[in-house]
Amino acid sequence: MSYYPLGIVKKNIVRADRAAVEKLSRFGVATLHEAMGRVGLMKTYMRPIYTGAHVCGPAVTVLLQPGDNWMMHVAAEQLTTGDVVVAACTTDNEDGFFGDLLATSFRARGALGLIIDGGVRDVKDLTEMDFPVFSRAVNAKGTVKATLGSVNIPVVCAGAMVHPGDVVIADADGVVVVPAAMAQQVADAAEAREALEAEKRAKLAAGVLGLDMYKMREPLERAGLKYID
Amino acid sequence: MSYYPLGIVKKNIVRADRAAVEKLSRFGVATLHEAMGRVGLMKTYMRPIYTGAHVCGPAVTVLLQPGDNWMMHVAAEQLTTGDVVVAACTTDNEDGFFGDLLATSFRARGALGLIIDGGVRDVKDLTEMDFPVFSRAVNAKGTVKATLGSVNIPVVCAGAMVHPGDVVIADADGVVVVPAAMAQQVADAAEAREALEAEKRAKLAAGVLGLDMYKMREPLERAGLKYID
Amino acid sequence: MSYYPLGIVKKNIVRADRAAVEKLSRFGVATLHEAMGRVGLMKTYMRPIYTGAHVCGPAVTVLLQPGDNWMMHVAAEQLTTGDVVVAACTTDNEDGFFGDLLATSFRARGALGLIIDGGVRDVKDLTEMDFPVFSRAVNAKGTVKATLGSVNIPVVCAGAMVHPGDVVIADADGVVVVPAAMAQQVADAAEAREALEAEKRAKLAAGVLGLDMYKMREPLERAGLKYID
Amino acid sequence: MSYYPLGIVKKNIVRADRAAVEKLSRFGVATLHEAMGRVGLMKTYMRPIYTGAHVCGPAVTVLLQPGDNWMMHVAAEQLTTGDVVVAACTTDNEDGFFGDLLATSFRARGALGLIIDGGVRDVKDLTEMDFPVFSRAVNAKGTVKATLGSVNIPVVCAGAMVHPGDVVIADADGVVVVPAAMAQQVADAAEAREALEAEKRAKLAAGVLGLDMYKMREPLERAGLKYID
Amino acid sequence: MSYYPLGIVKKNIVRADRAAVEKLSRFGVATLHEAMGRVGLMKTYMRPIYTGAHVCGPAVTVLLQPGDNWMMHVAAEQLTTGDVVVAACTTDNEDGFFGDLLATSFRARGALGLIIDGGVRDVKDLTEMDFPVFSRAVNAKGTVKATLGSVNIPVVCAGAMVHPGDVVIADADGVVVVPAAMAQQVADAAEAREALEAEKRAKLAAGVLGLDMYKMREPLERAGLKYID
Amino acid sequence: MSYYPLGIVKKNIVRADRAAVEKLSRFGVATLHEAMGRVGLMKTYMRPIYTGAHVCGPAVTVLLQPGDNWMMHVAAEQLTTGDVVVAACTTDNEDGFFGDLLATSFRARGALGLIIDGGVRDVKDLTEMDFPVFSRAVNAKGTVKATLGSVNIPVVCAGAMVHPGDVVIADADGVVVVPAAMAQQVADAAEAREALEAEKRAKLAAGVLGLDMYKMREPLERAGLKYID
Repeated sequence: MSYYPLGIVKKNIVRADRAAVEKLSRFGVATLHEAMGRVGLMKTYMRPIYTGAHVCGPAVTVLLQPGDNWMMHVAAEQLTTGDVVVAACTTDNEDGFFGDLLATSFRARGALGLIIDGGVRDVKDLTEMDFPVFSRAVNAKGTVKATLGSVNIPVVCAGAMVHPGDVVIADADGVVVVPAAMAQQVADAAEAREALEAEKRAKLAAGVLGLDMYKMREPLERAGLKYID
Repeated sequence: MSYYPLGIVKKNIVRADRAAVEKLSRFGVATLHEAMGRVGLMKTYMRPIYTGAHVCGPAVTVLLQPGDNWMMHVAAEQLTTGDVVVAACTTDNEDGFFGDLLATSFRARGALGLIIDGGVRDVKDLTEMDFPVFSRAVNAKGTVKATLGSVNIPVVCAGAMVHPGDVVIADADGVVVVPAAMAQQVADAAEAREALEAEKRAKLAAGVLGLDMYKMREPLERAGLKYID
Repeated sequence: MSYYPLGIVKKNIVRADRAAVEKLSRFGVATLHEAMGRVGLMKTYMRPIYTGAHVCGPAVTVLLQPGDNWMMHVAAEQLTTGDVVVAACTTDNEDGFFGDLLATSFRARGALGLIIDGGVRDVKDLTEMDFPVFSRAVNAKGTVKATLGSVNIPVVCAGAMVHPGDVVIADADGVVVVPAAMAQQVADAAEAREALEAEKRAKLAAGVLGLDMYKMREPLERAGLKYID
Repeated sequence: MSYYPLGIVKKNIVRADRAAVEKLSRFGVATLHEAMGRVGLMKTYMRPIYTGAHVCGPAVTVLLQPGDNWMMHVAAEQLTTGDVVVAACTTDNEDGFFGDLLATSFRARGALGLIIDGGVRDVKDLTEMDFPVFSRAVNAKGTVKATLGSVNIPVVCAGAMVHPGDVVIADADGVVVVPAAMAQQVADAAEAREALEAEKRAKLAAGVLGLDMYKMREPLERAGLKYID
Repeated sequence: MSYYPLGIVKKNIVRADRAAVEKLSRFGVATLHEAMGRVGLMKTYMRPIYTGAHVCGPAVTVLLQPGDNWMMHVAAEQLTTGDVVVAACTTDNEDGFFGDLLATSFRARGALGLIIDGGVRDVKDLTEMDFPVFSRAVNAKGTVKATLGSVNIPVVCAGAMVHPGDVVIADADGVVVVPAAMAQQVADAAEAREALEAEKRAKLAAGVLGLDMYKMREPLERAGLKYID
Repeated sequence: MSYYPLGIVKKNIVRADRAAVEKLSRFGVATLHEAMGRVGLMKTYMRPIYTGAHVCGPAVTVLLQPGDNWMMHVAAEQLTTGDVVVAACTTDNEDGFFGDLLATSFRARGALGLIIDGGVRDVKDLTEMDFPVFSRAVNAKGTVKATLGSVNIPVVCAGAMVHPGDVVIADADGVVVVPAAMAQQVADAAEAREALEAEKRAKLAAGVLGLDMYKMREPLERAGLKYID
């Protein structure tokens, strides 16, 4: 009865263009967030479970119920090579919805990683598998399989809207969502941005001040900044 | 460049049907959330600034920048009688984006109240005006007017997706969002639900146990529940 | 298999002595916590849902699963006049486990109130019923009935150990647990303490300093306190 | 050995000018914070223990140790009519450092209220006494008297710097600190500000938009705001 | 006067069977929590101070006062080879109760590690010593030695009940408590569980879906799950 | 108009004595905090962005506005070899105020690191640069340059008062501030303290109990500690 009802699995989703996804994977989250126009970022409580974790791919979305990971198994069947699972929950809940068994299954189905607004466990195993997970918590507590959520409906995950097929990119700086339709455009913008940054970096490294490079002195003065001794 | 870009004001939005809104206003948030199929609820940190605050109406959405309430003034012009302003922010920020002056302006434009994933101030005045506000914080700190956000784009507010024109209902139990297209359907479902609840309440008040009324004894036994002395 | 296993309902519990409970009910939580020797207090996030809420009685304990209030219905059957329900959860979860229907049922069974390390809803109704609830959150979100917890096992609720039958007292200052076997002793100690406090209050009101009344000047000097101009 | 060492009581402090304090007491915290130039506000977790609490006066500062309120008694002796006690702690701690006995003593010494970055208890009694307290928590847990802090040294309380003698004003919007030397100037600025606000309020109530009243249309357009249908 | 009074040191405690402890040490926390029947887990804020920290042993419990580590020294004397110290506090407090000196002492007495619902310091030294600590915070702030707590009484540590002699196991997934009397039983259950998991892992790695392996398709359909295109 | 007004850059600040800074850099934060008399520590949420980060130097202070890093560029010009930037914000805000470009600029100007009560991004680059940053969050979100803050005014950063020129030392245990005028004195006290600690460590490693080394048995007994079997 709702827009995004519970108890639904959407089988066919349109994933972002493969080449665009590949191009997006070359850039960091901070750059992509800028290239997006500063929208689409998840909350900062989403952290990698090990240093160096990085993932980029089209999202298969899951809406979980608290303390219940039934839908994770349903999602596994919908996975295709290169997918990233994005799991939201109907409430704030940090139970351990995911561990090394599910990671094994997801990987066997081609998934590259997991973004989950909840807890995960078997962190040592996941690290050894080099299976990247970004989560809000680590939690040994397991879950039941009793209540329906949904798979491949739009979800709000850690404050960001994610539609199935959107590109999700996660690294040490956080997690950003690029709408499927914008993937190429954002990748191109990120590329342009990086080129510019290299130039700026060189100047700043040479001792040029941002004040001069960005021509800030005049606007600062106009805003009323006063230098005193 | 993004789906929901910054720097945009959408002037014409389709508000939920007026009669449906009126009908929705008769029900509490807990009932409506159930009638929705248990989706659409904002996070529990959204609290009324005074006891008894209650509001229901179609949403005019605002996306704010941290420490900046410029867009609130832009939103004022888009208000129509009966609207509820729903303000999200591009980041977690509890500054005082709203006070009695803006409330005066919003009311003059016909707005019924405010839902804001940020801070508000002049709480005493707002209470005396009986202008209902649901916010994540009370904060005396004012804001600047320097950076563009947007008005009437879809926003994620306190974890819930809100499209302009959706119905937002807030009371002591929290804030729920009913998509415009579902307003009548949800109102009807809430009505049916309330009728059922009255019956149940009478039985429970008479001492009938939920165990019997909901026929739970058998499923509990099947699940393995054991009674010991 | 565990000490306090899931899936258990203990039917016969030993409640604290009725007269002792009655005597305990005359004292505030701060006084009782002192009289206990400064143990047994729940975390400060446990707050009354309305101003003036107060409750005192022997505990019927419930261990809930996240997003699931099945055990609340099981607990209802175990209630006796004067009981206070103390509900813990196997994880941090703020879902709305309890509303006016359950309150109606609990009251019909004789329960005086609820202490819950979770969320509640129908706050306006509960306030009108004057049914005292102390909770960690208000949350319109309802729960399912799918997974077993337990009733009348020892639980850790908001950081405090509670055995079934212990006396739980809650007021504006918080929630304290008095072991059943100590109820009379704590009530007597609280009474003695209150008598002393009246005396002290009179002295302090007359302008006598705590420094002198408690003879602190000498120990402060010994500890090295220095007065400067 | 430190700037603001432990174990010190400064006896003679310079309180803000009495007339300026009186004038400051007429304005709300939000107005005063603006009049200060938007500095000096405490964190938003500082809340009144009852609705309507309001206090204004020169600060007598206390630096407490966790779980220890010894210095509160030392501070009592330093109080003069009209003072407000501002209590900070050497660490984050929400124990109940203050209750109705200390309030009786403080009031007998002339103090008007308490601002404490910690917990308080006996909230019902304090409310009946109408003794305004702004705190970060309510906590029944009492404290020991074993370790030295200081009285009337500069403290950081809830994120704000407070020197003894500064004026502290607290109401429903929060707590603001006005340096003693600026008291008159800030009071005058607040007065001017309030006059302006009355004018603005009248215009906004008449339906004038902030967009026009503040002449925002041109800067918004320059910033790139786009109106779409 | 209380059940678990302050000011007590229990000298003789019954530690879990040595062989059972040794067997428990072979399993991870997530596995043991399952084997326990999903009880006994501490809150997820308890984190290792360095990657790879792991500890297993019978608990010597300590109840600390805020900002005071006196009882840690009292506990040192009660330690025996293989023990793990479990430190709770009478209130929420993140002071640095423990550093490299105490670690040196604990190790000299045979202790294997520390679980503390508080802060620790000298993290670099502790890491170099490879002394495993699981804590809620890192905090350079030292503590005083002025107020009595207790040693070897039952404590609630990070939400879990711990009796002296219970086995405490901590790794990257968190901290779990196994009652002494259940140590062998839980170790055996964990062993059985691990065997099963190896089988499941192999199947899942081969691409078998959990949906099939766990025979979930039929219950999902019965629960109403709908597949759409 | 305030004590520490916005819109100010102080050009000439008195930095702590260079030799004293150098000596301070040899000691850990926990030791220095003790040597300071247990004051001057920042909140524990300030964490290094990579393991092993360590920095010590005189502070150049920055007061930022939420979501705005304009002042960081202004601060860059005020940097001298060996400085550490200490950035506070006028409100709680975790936006990404700082990334690899600013780090490049700061390093080119001689800065050794950054302490920021806000967010940072480009964490991978900063780690590769070995540019030590201690922050409250990692956040990919960039900031605007629109509103004035100040440079080299006294600030409250993560709960600690910092004057420009004070020495700031940060390591795995946290961040401590040593007033410029006390730098030598604190360094000397830290040296003395370390010498003492080495002795104590040796004794404790040999199995001597703190109970005996610190002569605690008698005061514990006097305080009422009871040993039971």
